[in-house]
Amino acid sequence: MRYELYYWPSIQGRGEFVRLALEDAGADYDDVARRPKGMPAMMRLLESRSNEYPPFAPPFLKAGKLVIAQTANILLYLATRLDLVPKSEATRLWAHQLQLTIADWVGEVHDTHHPIGGGLYYEEQKAEAKRRTADFTANRLPKFLGYFEQILKRHPKGSEYLLGGKVSYVDLSMFQMIEGVRYAFPRTMARLEPKYPRLIALHDRISARPRIAPYLRSPRRIPFNQEGIFRRYPELDR
Amino acid sequence: MRYELYYWPSIQGRGEFVRLALEDAGADYDDVARRPKGMPAMMRLLESRSNEYPPFAPPFLKAGKLVIAQTANILLYLATRLDLVPKSEATRLWAHQLQLTIADWVGEVHDTHHPIGGGLYYEEQKAEAKRRTADFTANRLPKFLGYFEQILKRHPKGSEYLLGGKVSYVDLSMFQMIEGVRYAFPRTMARLEPKYPRLIALHDRISARPRIAPYLRSPRRIPFNQEGIFRRYPELDR
Repeated sequence: MRYELYYWPSIQGRGEFVRLALEDAGADYDDVARRPKGMPAMMRLLESRSNEYPPFAPPFLKAGKLVIAQTANILLYLATRLDLVPKSEATRLWAHQLQLTIADWVGEVHDTHHPIGGGLYYEEQKAEAKRRTADFTANRLPKFLGYFEQILKRHPKGSEYLLGGKVSYVDLSMFQMIEGVRYAFPRTMARLEPKYPRLIALHDRISARPRIAPYLRSPRRIPFNQEGIFRRYPELDR
Repeated sequence: MRYELYYWPSIQGRGEFVRLALEDAGADYDDVARRPKGMPAMMRLLESRSNEYPPFAPPFLKAGKLVIAQTANILLYLATRLDLVPKSEATRLWAHQLQLTIADWVGEVHDTHHPIGGGLYYEEQKAEAKRRTADFTANRLPKFLGYFEQILKRHPKGSEYLLGGKVSYVDLSMFQMIEGVRYAFPRTMARLEPKYPRLIALHDRISARPRIAPYLRSPRRIPFNQEGIFRRYPELDR
């Protein structure tokens, strides 16, 4: 199966969580909107009135006849095909629950720089962004980090991944969260990181994986920038 | 199977999407935190260090040995048991995708009155709430309503539910969204509703269902109030 990923071509954004799963699994995929004429193809699919299963927004994945949107839903579908989650229903629900909590976290990171509206420029909501980010870095960020650190801490010794014994797509997403908040809030993270040693070790373990390490060095990995979910505005990072 | 739902006892909130599914199916369930000593029981489960699958936040569902959190994940699990979604994987992914889009919409409604932080009072972020709600009612609310209206419009004539022929848990959630935005933004909705006749008809169809109509009149249905996701602040509703 050759998968087709549709996502904005110039940012990591939400699409990166899907890219990391495809890359780690060595899956055959096309990052459609990054190809010549790929953006118009994506926009046609988004705006088509005949598509029976229209996405609300990118990312979405074409897998044969299926068109699947919502990042966590795409990963729910892919993980069983790419062997990135154990087979039992209980474990899959648990993995998906963690992924949905990550999705909430991503939404909150986005809103640190866009607390008023996604259609307005950052500069138009800078004062509100300062207030929201202060609350996020003081309260929400430690809450999310602490929650996932606790999950790692509860495992028997030697279990180094979020689901326990074996790597899963949730670990790949957690790597991306740590990368992202380090990029966006370097001062805050320098202060917080010592409290979450298991998460940082997980991040390092993922970044060294045989397919992830070369991916991160490749041109397929779009650098962080000021257009994505994770943005570095020094005035927000005290 | 007797299900145990754990959610804040004084609000509809995110728990209501689960309640509506359980009620429509006539499922045997216990709304634990609304019983005597239910709140301490919920807090113990939330704070337990031994629970292998700890929820990040309510709602969560106990089903036998399983503890499942994240509203859309709970519905993903329940829908197959309660016959509230067709059996094919493609349709289930599509239903879940719609539910996750509803979850995003719920998050945005919450942030209209809490754009800075959930730990602060509304009164501490009223100025920002006015700006965010103006953007929400002008841009986001019509976008969400228009998306779901289009889905109904694409069906062949006579298909009156979001997945097509038969009612699903997504329709129950859509009923709740219409109820909620009508409560929170009555003026805005009076202006917008004529553009979305299929959604309003769906809402009315759901509210008349044989188990939903009596539920809505029962004391089990908590009234809307100023503590939940949907709140009526007249100054936000122009």
